[in-house]
Amino acid sequence: MNNTKGIIVVISGPSGSGKGTIVNELIKNEQYALSISATTRKPRIGEKEGIHYFFMSKEEFLEMINKEELVEWAEFCDNYYGTPKSYIEDKINKGKDVILEIEVQGALQVKKIYPEAILIFIIPPSLTELKNRLLKRGTETSEIIEKRLMRAVEELDFVKEYDYLLVNDSIDNVVNEINMIIKTEHFKANRRTSLIEKIKKE
Amino acid sequence: MNNTKGIIVVISGPSGSGKGTIVNELIKNEQYALSISATTRKPRIGEKEGIHYFFMSKEEFLEMINKEELVEWAEFCDNYYGTPKSYIEDKINKGKDVILEIEVQGALQVKKIYPEAILIFIIPPSLTELKNRLLKRGTETSEIIEKRLMRAVEELDFVKEYDYLLVNDSIDNVVNEINMIIKTEHFKANRRTSLIEKIKKE
Repeated sequence: MNNTKGIIVVISGPSGSGKGTIVNELIKNEQYALSISATTRKPRIGEKEGIHYFFMSKEEFLEMINKEELVEWAEFCDNYYGTPKSYIEDKINKGKDVILEIEVQGALQVKKIYPEAILIFIIPPSLTELKNRLLKRGTETSEIIEKRLMRAVEELDFVKEYDYLLVNDSIDNVVNEINMIIKTEHFKANRRTSLIEKIKKE
Repeated sequence: MNNTKGIIVVISGPSGSGKGTIVNELIKNEQYALSISATTRKPRIGEKEGIHYFFMSKEEFLEMINKEELVEWAEFCDNYYGTPKSYIEDKINKGKDVILEIEVQGALQVKKIYPEAILIFIIPPSLTELKNRLLKRGTETSEIIEKRLMRAVEELDFVKEYDYLLVNDSIDNVVNEINMIIKTEHFKANRRTSLIEKIKKE
């Protein structure tokens, strides 16, 4: 599989869907590379350049936007965050599957630029379960939790733009399912055109 | 998974690709049903109605064509062969995945009528290997073998219309790969719309 191009895999889901934990499990597999974001935010203690983020000045970031070197970007609390194309393309050309954990708007932007990317949406088994998970964290007020639930329902309208929908009943199950999805996506006929050419040349 | 609709799975490949053996292995799994053809050919000894074929008169077959009750059909040595829609639809409505072993033209016809069907094309590891397999059978003249190889190369042009391309390096591998493909196809967001509706109603 190493001589074929890697696949871009976007993972989204509401806050409380468990997508963060799932991504952390996935990237233990050496076949995958986690996409690294560029940001104008200052590094926090322990954060390393090129591992947690590509840190840069506002001027550098704006230049990346102008040169269309970002797949998607957003401004949040006076800082810019974005996904550099070069890192993703370098990894997929080396045959690695690149995982992006990204929200709905960004995901659709990725699909626009890379139509061959696969979009996976993760949902909790039910809204009740989602509410319970958010309550369990104990970090948010009930007002914020209500907002998050409303947002989760709104986001469901975008699920039809996604390729796969997974129900997070257990982290292990979902990780296995994503591994299977990526494996079978490599069998897609339109990803194996070089194989067809090779046989024809015979 | 039993409350969701089954998937139509079409399997094609050149003579010598091993697709017959693969299909026989697959249908040992109770989740799958093999599509049964209608034919005007007389039953051979041991062949049972509704198991090997739906046997019928030429008049009955022509009526099925007129009523558009066949997904695809062909005439071969003065006999008609075709795939009845009713059998397939009955099985997928019961949640079974229906396997069709069918040649390229028929496969494209299935996709036209059922765009949600998945088409899998199986190839041998190389043309040399395909030739060896055909020679090993010892049932065909070298002239026929050459014709089959030419046809196999021609068919490769249609692979881009297929969803998946699998290389038959071992029967077990391909059977596993097809099982994985069918499993992940059930995770497709557009096959899980009822799940989204259910959560929204909450």
